Amino acid sequence: MSQLELLSDSRCFGGSQRRYRHQARELGCSMVFGVFLPPAALDGEVVPALYWLSGLTCTDENFSQKAGAQRRAAELGLALVMPDTSPRGAAVPDDPEGSWDFGHGAGFYVDAGAAPWASHYRMHSYVVEELPRCVEAALPLNGRRSISGHSMGGHGALVAALRHPGRYRAVSAFAPIASPSRCPWGQKALGHLLGPEDEGWQQWDATGLLAAGRLAWGSAEAGGAPLPILVDQGTADPFLDTQLHPQALAAAAAAAGQPLTLRLQEGYDHSYFCIASFIDDHLEHHAQALLG
Amino acid sequence: MSQLELLSDSRCFGGSQRRYRHQARELGCSMVFGVFLPPAALDGEVVPALYWLSGLTCTDENFSQKAGAQRRAAELGLALVMPDTSPRGAAVPDDPEGSWDFGHGAGFYVDAGAAPWASHYRMHSYVVEELPRCVEAALPLNGRRSISGHSMGGHGALVAALRHPGRYRAVSAFAPIASPSRCPWGQKALGHLLGPEDEGWQQWDATGLLAAGRLAWGSAEAGGAPLPILVDQGTADPFLDTQLHPQALAAAAAAAGQPLTLRLQEGYDHSYFCIASFIDDHLEHHAQALLG
Repeated sequence: MSQLELLSDSRCFGGSQRRYRHQARELGCSMVFGVFLPPAALDGEVVPALYWLSGLTCTDENFSQKAGAQRRAAELGLALVMPDTSPRGAAVPDDPEGSWDFGHGAGFYVDAGAAPWASHYRMHSYVVEELPRCVEAALPLNGRRSISGHSMGGHGALVAALRHPGRYRAVSAFAPIASPSRCPWGQKALGHLLGPEDEGWQQWDATGLLAAGRLAWGSAEAGGAPLPILVDQGTADPFLDTQLHPQALAAAAAAAGQPLTLRLQEGYDHSYFCIASFIDDHLEHHAQALLG
Repeated sequence: MSQLELLSDSRCFGGSQRRYRHQARELGCSMVFGVFLPPAALDGEVVPALYWLSGLTCTDENFSQKAGAQRRAAELGLALVMPDTSPRGAAVPDDPEGSWDFGHGAGFYVDAGAAPWASHYRMHSYVVEELPRCVEAALPLNGRRSISGHSMGGHGALVAALRHPGRYRAVSAFAPIASPSRCPWGQKALGHLLGPEDEGWQQWDATGLLAAGRLAWGSAEAGGAPLPILVDQGTADPFLDTQLHPQALAAAAAAAGQPLTLRLQEGYDHSYFCIASFIDDHLEHHAQALLG
């Protein structure tokens, strides 16, 4: 178990907004992540945690600074855990073209199988297994988990829930890359990280997983039914037509018997102004499952 | 009247979060500022506006992205107007030492009298007069104004209210530089912008203005009484002892008969996590005066 180094700690809505650094074994590098602990966790309770996965170019700080989630999370008694979006550092290979949509800041939450990426780009195992193990051992968390994210992180959250039955009690997404195998961002990243398409891209594609009959199963204690998935998508999102494909996700969910609510938010774009506007609904969706 | 060029427009809590650029005559340069219009303003109403002045190193974007103010502003029907923190551009002189606490990003909301600053560094007249004139002519605002800000911007807001009787209906501040003439940040900036201390520093010092008998007078329509000033200050703010001096402000207000509530927020620091935690109280303080 790697040690957590506390980098900062700011009081926020009566709780505590922190940044930690630790050595991530899955990623072979040092990683920074954010945690918000609600007031209850500072008063001796153990609380459930929502894991938030951010989008392309983001760090651990975008959600903590821009989403305004702490207000309602403090009231509900939810912790927030906010990892970075890729392995980092000089030893970690980056996109040879230096672009913003792959490499550092854009790890796509998969476990890479292709060289030179496979030794560091294991963000899926990091966010699903290693990071929860570390934070739950060190902080007052009760092991109840849920997951959400934005864009690339929405993809990561959906795939995590679909691949790990019983691991999460709730899942949601904002403007997810709902089918990376059919959009330019995803094709570029999966091509690098996994190799040619027949090397299992569909195992890392929420729409493909649903089409193959995988559902987002809840925990046994919570009844073991498929988790209802909440997705918000702005209609003025400039990436909607080319990159996101929420309708393909909704169609695959309907065909598979996976409950999914896709809310089209009229006039909203891809920014954190959209996330801030609807994050309370997502926090309540998660709290209902985590606290019930 | 300069034209406003719309740079971006994002839907946010049913309202509209925008950035505009215009040519600022007071500053002799092009300036970007942010505006949040609440849903009511998009539905044909004219609404009051809270002017927010940000702190050292900030731009027009810090408050719009990090404070989470739009949620309550949307409910209350308040517009938010968020200027940049200094004149900008290659033609605008910057701190010769290249520091972050003076020059670009750190205009201190005064009207400079000393060369080479006097031709551009007129942020006081810009935020008090030119910017309101521009935005009130172009946007659905009803001319009722209030003012608030953080750190350097808290100083700017207090000085604006104290120097302009009747211009604002409410004033508040977070962790203001409450007496720039007695702190290193202020002494450096005022020394550059105004010249030696006897060149009127006290006219740009909220504590000095109160000591000279200036009160923050409300508008005649609102009864003409002194405005109650609300100040929040975190007790874990690393700048509290050296730079901020809220107790000097409170003492001068008490001696002058200026109503002022100084709230010491236990354990909070100088960051936007503090602002986000208490911004709703400030918005309600302003709305009570602006909508009453």
